[in-house]
Amino acid sequence: VTAPSLWALPRGRLVLASASPRRRDLLSLQGVRFEVRPPDVDESDTDGPARTVVRRLALAKAEAVSRLLPRSWVIGADTVVTLGGTNLGKPADAAEARRMLRRLSGCEHTVYTGVALLGLEFRRAGSRATRVRFRRLTEAEIRSYVATGEPMDKAGSYALQGQGALLLHSITGDWSNVIGLPLGLLRDLLGEAARSQRASAGRLGRVR
Amino acid sequence: VTAPSLWALPRGRLVLASASPRRRDLLSLQGVRFEVRPPDVDESDTDGPARTVVRRLALAKAEAVSRLLPRSWVIGADTVVTLGGTNLGKPADAAEARRMLRRLSGCEHTVYTGVALLGLEFRRAGSRATRVRFRRLTEAEIRSYVATGEPMDKAGSYALQGQGALLLHSITGDWSNVIGLPLGLLRDLLGEAARSQRASAGRLGRVR
Repeated sequence: VTAPSLWALPRGRLVLASASPRRRDLLSLQGVRFEVRPPDVDESDTDGPARTVVRRLALAKAEAVSRLLPRSWVIGADTVVTLGGTNLGKPADAAEARRMLRRLSGCEHTVYTGVALLGLEFRRAGSRATRVRFRRLTEAEIRSYVATGEPMDKAGSYALQGQGALLLHSITGDWSNVIGLPLGLLRDLLGEAARSQRASAGRLGRVR
Repeated sequence: VTAPSLWALPRGRLVLASASPRRRDLLSLQGVRFEVRPPDVDESDTDGPARTVVRRLALAKAEAVSRLLPRSWVIGADTVVTLGGTNLGKPADAAEARRMLRRLSGCEHTVYTGVALLGLEFRRAGSRATRVRFRRLTEAEIRSYVATGEPMDKAGSYALQGQGALLLHSITGDWSNVIGLPLGLLRDLLGEAARSQRASAGRLGRVR
């Protein structure tokens, strides 16, 4: 980016390893230039502490794309919703989506998103947590919402920025994390990559 | 809307009396059909308690458009940022934007958005408040952010969903309210309008 920006980016190609249009839109709004390559990764294993799971899957997604594009900077991300010690991923069908929403109704849950950044000699990952409280939902609301189709490809069966917004009472923390890409964390990782690239160019300079 | 939806809308034309692309995008994502008519209203008078100011300006915006389209349902909205008893509206220039951001840096402020809905025999308004905490910003960050131009048409000199996202530490409450259109409140007002329309149709039916 040459325009004024709060983002410090490493030089080179930036690739978002995600099929999520919500992550793509979020990063586009930042004026950052990037390409999108959906990774081919099995996301069904969500066992373990949420913080660990989302980092592991974010790294797996970034690695799947990095193998194909080893000279690019590749961003991976994964989001999981946890409630009472259980990790809720994407629902398998409408019935599971309704069950998840009944559990979330009237309660506070936590959304974890892991972010990984891979480069040629760079590998970092982190995660953020945000608390989200749902309104008490009626069965009719749950059925109407699932009928919109919106919950089907979302962790926890809802989207913050779609009609899912109407299910929420409040959020506490980073809203971009709930959408699936914590922008502050991503900016920190990209800034680190830019600094490591400058340091490495400096070392090469001295060798020559 | 004939598609499944959590929105209950009154029959008739729905008009958003706002020039804000952020409000338009937020409502578009809900699958609600509406037109946009920017109102011609003086927004400079932000004296008084924030809750009162945003309702007054939301009503003024809706009224300005409702006079031209009296048979439509017209939505007005206004957003103000308050810090230590002072209301911050849109900055007049880059210097004022920098001053506002220096005040917000490292502190928690409150965002108030008022929403008004006007119909032929319908007039309601409400407001919501959300707390937003900023990171401690460096002078370089403030200058970079103001140089992007993003703060210039925003209450409090920042946008939640743009690069302004990087200034935030956390939010507590309704995130759509911070963008400038509290979706839960708007849904409640439109639901009331739909019920009042059905009740009024019932009365007319009995008279005939």
